[in-house]
Amino acid sequence: MQLTGRMVIGFDRVAGTGRAITAVDPRTGDGFGPEYRYGDRGDVERACALADEAFDAYRATTAERRAAFLEAIAGRLDELTGVLVRRAVSETGLPEARLTGEVGRTTGQLRLFAADLREGQTRAGPLATGGEGRPILSVDPAGDGGPEIRQGRVALGPVAVFGASNFPFAFSVAGGDTASALAAGCPVIAKAHDAHPGTCELVGRAVSEAVQEAGLPEGVFSMLYGDGPTLGIALVTDPRVRAVGFTGSRGAGLAIAGAAANRPRPIPVYAEMSSVNPVFLLPDAVAARGGELAEGFVGSVTLGAGQFCTNPGLVFAVKGAQLDAFLDAAAEALEADPGAPMLTPGIADAYARGVERLEGRPGVEIVARGREPDAAAGCRAALAVVDAADFGPDLQEEIFGACSLVVRCDDLDQVVDVARGLEGQLTATIHGRGDDAARLLPVLERLAGRIVWDGWPTGVRVGHAMVHGGPFPATSDARSTSVGSLAVERFQRPIAYQGVPR
Amino acid sequence: MQLTGRMVIGFDRVAGTGRAITAVDPRTGDGFGPEYRYGDRGDVERACALADEAFDAYRATTAERRAAFLEAIAGRLDELTGVLVRRAVSETGLPEARLTGEVGRTTGQLRLFAADLREGQTRAGPLATGGEGRPILSVDPAGDGGPEIRQGRVALGPVAVFGASNFPFAFSVAGGDTASALAAGCPVIAKAHDAHPGTCELVGRAVSEAVQEAGLPEGVFSMLYGDGPTLGIALVTDPRVRAVGFTGSRGAGLAIAGAAANRPRPIPVYAEMSSVNPVFLLPDAVAARGGELAEGFVGSVTLGAGQFCTNPGLVFAVKGAQLDAFLDAAAEALEADPGAPMLTPGIADAYARGVERLEGRPGVEIVARGREPDAAAGCRAALAVVDAADFGPDLQEEIFGACSLVVRCDDLDQVVDVARGLEGQLTATIHGRGDDAARLLPVLERLAGRIVWDGWPTGVRVGHAMVHGGPFPATSDARSTSVGSLAVERFQRPIAYQGVPR
Repeated sequence: MQLTGRMVIGFDRVAGTGRAITAVDPRTGDGFGPEYRYGDRGDVERACALADEAFDAYRATTAERRAAFLEAIAGRLDELTGVLVRRAVSETGLPEARLTGEVGRTTGQLRLFAADLREGQTRAGPLATGGEGRPILSVDPAGDGGPEIRQGRVALGPVAVFGASNFPFAFSVAGGDTASALAAGCPVIAKAHDAHPGTCELVGRAVSEAVQEAGLPEGVFSMLYGDGPTLGIALVTDPRVRAVGFTGSRGAGLAIAGAAANRPRPIPVYAEMSSVNPVFLLPDAVAARGGELAEGFVGSVTLGAGQFCTNPGLVFAVKGAQLDAFLDAAAEALEADPGAPMLTPGIADAYARGVERLEGRPGVEIVARGREPDAAAGCRAALAVVDAADFGPDLQEEIFGACSLVVRCDDLDQVVDVARGLEGQLTATIHGRGDDAARLLPVLERLAGRIVWDGWPTGVRVGHAMVHGGPFPATSDARSTSVGSLAVERFQRPIAYQGVPR
Repeated sequence: MQLTGRMVIGFDRVAGTGRAITAVDPRTGDGFGPEYRYGDRGDVERACALADEAFDAYRATTAERRAAFLEAIAGRLDELTGVLVRRAVSETGLPEARLTGEVGRTTGQLRLFAADLREGQTRAGPLATGGEGRPILSVDPAGDGGPEIRQGRVALGPVAVFGASNFPFAFSVAGGDTASALAAGCPVIAKAHDAHPGTCELVGRAVSEAVQEAGLPEGVFSMLYGDGPTLGIALVTDPRVRAVGFTGSRGAGLAIAGAAANRPRPIPVYAEMSSVNPVFLLPDAVAARGGELAEGFVGSVTLGAGQFCTNPGLVFAVKGAQLDAFLDAAAEALEADPGAPMLTPGIADAYARGVERLEGRPGVEIVARGREPDAAAGCRAALAVVDAADFGPDLQEEIFGACSLVVRCDDLDQVVDVARGLEGQLTATIHGRGDDAARLLPVLERLAGRIVWDGWPTGVRVGHAMVHGGPFPATSDARSTSVGSLAVERFQRPIAYQGVPR
């Protein structure tokens, strides 16, 4: 497949006229073609007009037709796996095996929503008069002279999707936000990510071709290149766009949420922004299996150069000889980490600055560094410790990469106190049992969207029950998830049909 | 029951120290005691601190215990019906029969949520390790070496509730927002409404006594008197308050939503603000039963002096002899309307000014007025017509009271065009059948939270399937309902338990 450097606007392939970017191989620091030029307001206008035109016809499709469409996208991505992974490896520096797995996860996600649509589990589609397999959610039967009332759900409208750098498939152009919006009956306008523009083009074209093949209106999917502050905000503030899915930095997420809240007609924004995913190592667990925990912990911290939203960036434990032994084992394991290229030179710079800042922070001690990787934009792992007395809000800031800070507490009371003061998180993890764990659980329920027990937060399973979300500032809206069956409901609203003929 | 003029802060009855207000009888314009003094920041602080303290213990209660608590509130209100209605009649000018029915509706709502809790239909309560009847929403079983993942819901935290003037029971201190928040596991801090302060005191004390009798922490319920811009906003911006339920004017709703969005940690606001509830009279219906429609229409417009959020303030129909006949019949019926007192002198003034503005609006013709009622703050019904060519955004503004505007369209194309340009609404109504109706339905699905077919929008049944909500600016958040079983979910968020022991 030849890359063209063009945007996808409905069935057209459009060359941008703005600033030009290319992909950069983070292993070498070298840029490589083709050139991608940013779109302008006219491109946003055209994509939004097409999406708005497509909306009514698309949301009126049957669950079966939408399911088949999602499966067709998945089939195309499966067929393209080799091409996609080759391009993504050179754009992201991520290992081939990981990216191959990520394509499978992405197609699995599309197929999960397809299956949910068929089973009516996601409550998809409006409850029209015709039926067509659209589920009735609940019914209050006619009686006492009153009419029957049925509850269904309607799609919100065109959705703007902003993908992340760290998952070029699963959280990008055909990732969870796009899959759930399409399943919900919403057209999608994706903003391609500058960190993997060629991968975006390949995936975007595949989606658009699936739209065409399915005989759906072309406005069901478009993909634009552009920067966040201009093209991104133009999308978010276009009156035809009715919801936003975003995965990325807190700064960008808050800018989008602010722009959406200040529209004449505000719209929902589902922004996944940042999380340090606290891990609580209770004394019984550290005593019983400190060595195993150290190994698991370092594996989770260094996985994929730590470039996961669920990377365990904070650990809380009670001081003592057993914690010291855990720290020694963790330091030893981390020092053996070979390092890895990061996604972009900018991310690698931010990581290095973050670790430097941590090193200079009074009270914080860097106890181990990993090896310096052989990459232009490399990540050298870091392990730090601090006493709870010296812990502060500044140490809750995410350092995106393979870095974690262990907070040494005097006792469990102090662990619980510090936990109460933490910001909202995607995940919170407990290793331990008994009364200590029982005491901590309700605190963590208030803190996070997912509680992990005797495990590690990295690795988000795609399934019916998953919640990948959490209280602000982990996300802009804790009432949803960006992974799993429930994600579809983000892009719908309930509606009651009173006395409407079936 | 002696009224005391005091606020309810947990189990204490506290006299405010701020501005003094009294109830006003809208039939006579006379104020009457006792005096209610506004609370201050210290009162907000104390209510929020108590609510926050109560939150963990309250959300950990079993569904059964919460159900029994809601039923105990309902039981107390039932017992007090006579006292409640007498006070409310004098504070609101609403008829005794209507208010008696409204108490029943309010207790029915509490009992519906209690039944839902028992049946697990509202997914209430966190999925704790202990069980205690808390429903598991979905489970991804352990497999391939991965842990089991269960999905539950956790309560958001203390909820601030702002009731409405027009439903002194069903949308006030123990109304839908309070009932659903309590069912969800959230403590409630209600702001009493100045238009019925004594009714609020009676209901607030009943709720607090039910808290005490149930052995629940006192912070589960408080009720304060105060004005919106100071005490109200202090509540909305208190960091311990985690969600807001509001029913009232667009101005106040937008102020609350803005304050909530600008918090360091934004929170959900469910504000029901305004709606003109468009009714579409299709030619076949006007031809077949124009007289019956005119009668039903005027009945819906004048019901309760038109003081319903679902009052049909706009009607769209196609010009012709049959519409003329409908208008003649409607004018005749409306002229016979005796009028009624409105809720407050301020509301009556605003209504009179709204009708005056309409009368002076070029293109608008007032075709009928009801009789002048014998009340200090009375509502004289009004029926106006305008040609679609003269219709504009200014005519979408709600005139709260018994006033409706019929928009005469050239043909169905024009009806559909105008419908596409309407703001979000709580309801949209179709009278008609066949292709015209089929063409209109998808337009109305995008417009409103409830579609009414061959009926009238006034009268919101409390049940499982009801949706009382709708796109902005009808509400600040279309993804919810303030009436019906689904209302509970507004005050919860999903959470995943990964590998957490059962």
